[in-house]
Amino acid sequence: MPFDITVLGTASATPTSTRHQSAQLVNLLGRFFLIDCGEGTQMQLRKSKIKIQKINFICISHLHGDHYLGLVGLLSTMNMLGRKKTLTIFAPKGLDKIIELHFKFSYSNLTYELNIVNLQGAKLVSLHEDDACQLFSFGLKHRVPCWGFKLIEKQRPKKMIKNMIEKYSIPFNSINDIKSGSDYINNKGEIIKNNLLTTSSYTPRSYAYCSDTLYFPSLVRHIQDVDLLYHEATFHSDLSSKAKSTFHSTAQDAAKVALQGNVKKLLIGHFSSRYKDLSVLKIDAEKIFNNVDLAIEGKKFKIRKYIKR
Amino acid sequence: MPFDITVLGTASATPTSTRHQSAQLVNLLGRFFLIDCGEGTQMQLRKSKIKIQKINFICISHLHGDHYLGLVGLLSTMNMLGRKKTLTIFAPKGLDKIIELHFKFSYSNLTYELNIVNLQGAKLVSLHEDDACQLFSFGLKHRVPCWGFKLIEKQRPKKMIKNMIEKYSIPFNSINDIKSGSDYINNKGEIIKNNLLTTSSYTPRSYAYCSDTLYFPSLVRHIQDVDLLYHEATFHSDLSSKAKSTFHSTAQDAAKVALQGNVKKLLIGHFSSRYKDLSVLKIDAEKIFNNVDLAIEGKKFKIRKYIKR
Repeated sequence: MPFDITVLGTASATPTSTRHQSAQLVNLLGRFFLIDCGEGTQMQLRKSKIKIQKINFICISHLHGDHYLGLVGLLSTMNMLGRKKTLTIFAPKGLDKIIELHFKFSYSNLTYELNIVNLQGAKLVSLHEDDACQLFSFGLKHRVPCWGFKLIEKQRPKKMIKNMIEKYSIPFNSINDIKSGSDYINNKGEIIKNNLLTTSSYTPRSYAYCSDTLYFPSLVRHIQDVDLLYHEATFHSDLSSKAKSTFHSTAQDAAKVALQGNVKKLLIGHFSSRYKDLSVLKIDAEKIFNNVDLAIEGKKFKIRKYIKR
Repeated sequence: MPFDITVLGTASATPTSTRHQSAQLVNLLGRFFLIDCGEGTQMQLRKSKIKIQKINFICISHLHGDHYLGLVGLLSTMNMLGRKKTLTIFAPKGLDKIIELHFKFSYSNLTYELNIVNLQGAKLVSLHEDDACQLFSFGLKHRVPCWGFKLIEKQRPKKMIKNMIEKYSIPFNSINDIKSGSDYINNKGEIIKNNLLTTSSYTPRSYAYCSDTLYFPSLVRHIQDVDLLYHEATFHSDLSSKAKSTFHSTAQDAAKVALQGNVKKLLIGHFSSRYKDLSVLKIDAEKIFNNVDLAIEGKKFKIRKYIKR
């Protein structure tokens, strides 16, 4: 039951010789979401031994090059490797035109269907829903139209306590109803309470991704209570005026969002190339919020299961 | 007096976890030419400690992604770092539209002038000339319009033999004429032959770049006698039918061009991702031509000076 995030790139606009531009791969129960796709993402995926054809959805936060310039290369490679499966891309308006122009001049025809959905609105918008999870977008505040993303796992069915099936002679065709929370009524009309028959599944997990954005208080409502929040932290708080003028956040801004949003853990990234030693940014955020980690390339962050009691 | 080529990427269309897509930096007496600019080139430049603002010219061979998808990112970084100097790009028609669209959606204004020159024609076309060198393009045969490039150094002036200046009391204002090959006529009307006064400078050096192309015999006339020929060698000769159907060359095709063109040295690259051990391609080429090297990322190939006698 994995729900994990592999960091593929963590540089801000100017890459360094060791930090690539923004990209993350989220594996939610075998559904693969690529969030942002900076230059070099396809090589970073290879280095992390992730099979690119497994990716079902790509979310592009905004049309600054450091968040999408690896996309056309990735789509081309998927094509060369003979992809057949539809690929859905959630992106700001305009990306469709950019992709179209690239493929026009390379005389390429895609072997698979590309389903490009334009992001819109500042509110929480559901982009995708299946039996296991739901994906949302929400507006951020940057120099160009920009969106964050949230992935929420659905409540898993309850688990049958195995020896209760025998004890109460429960027929097979009643099991799914009981797992969904129903009591069991036997042939004599006796009611066996559901909590005698089942144990709860773990609490649904959630992840939110915010890059790039100015700090603004109302952002908090969209990321409230998530298990893991990724938030950009381009600058140290001693450069807060630079952060404001460039529509970016400081490590303390990110921590403020995490604290106000009551999230369990904060992951910071999108580091300015001026920071060789990233621990200064972690320490800066920890002044406000106490569970902070650095988004380090190649590192996988697992969201662990727990049962709310 | 450097004339060297730094290999930045050497993969064919599908990159591997260790081989980036096509890009090379040529330093010809302090003039910096970037030839092709696959995804990740700006990071490769950083790794090779090359200052990106030194680049004066960019040559893009064709509009397949693996040869130009690093360009917009590089132009953006040059912009963010405050470039003022004009940048000239030689590229197939259409690249201007691609660049324009990217910058439209990122709401970016360039701080420097971008001079985009469309490549055209199959013949040898002079793209740039200054006091030290000349840059040419010539047509290749690929699935999309594609060009090769040739850089030729100009003949350097002869060198004065210093003690001859004193011996023949040569005035300062005659030196340049003598360096250009003139004899010296003294006040008494005596002719001192030039070869008594000077030594020859080294023979002008040259480099040609051919990627991607089907083998075709008439290509040879454009690369005749160059000191170093880079030629794509996507496949081993045992896949020659695959090479033909994809408009690519085998290592033996590249060697044939080198042999017929009487070049001094052959550098092969653009390797298919199927080859983990590249020595098989070197061995394949060496069956036809005996001075072959592999284009390895980060490696610098110096074209050495020599004097033709």
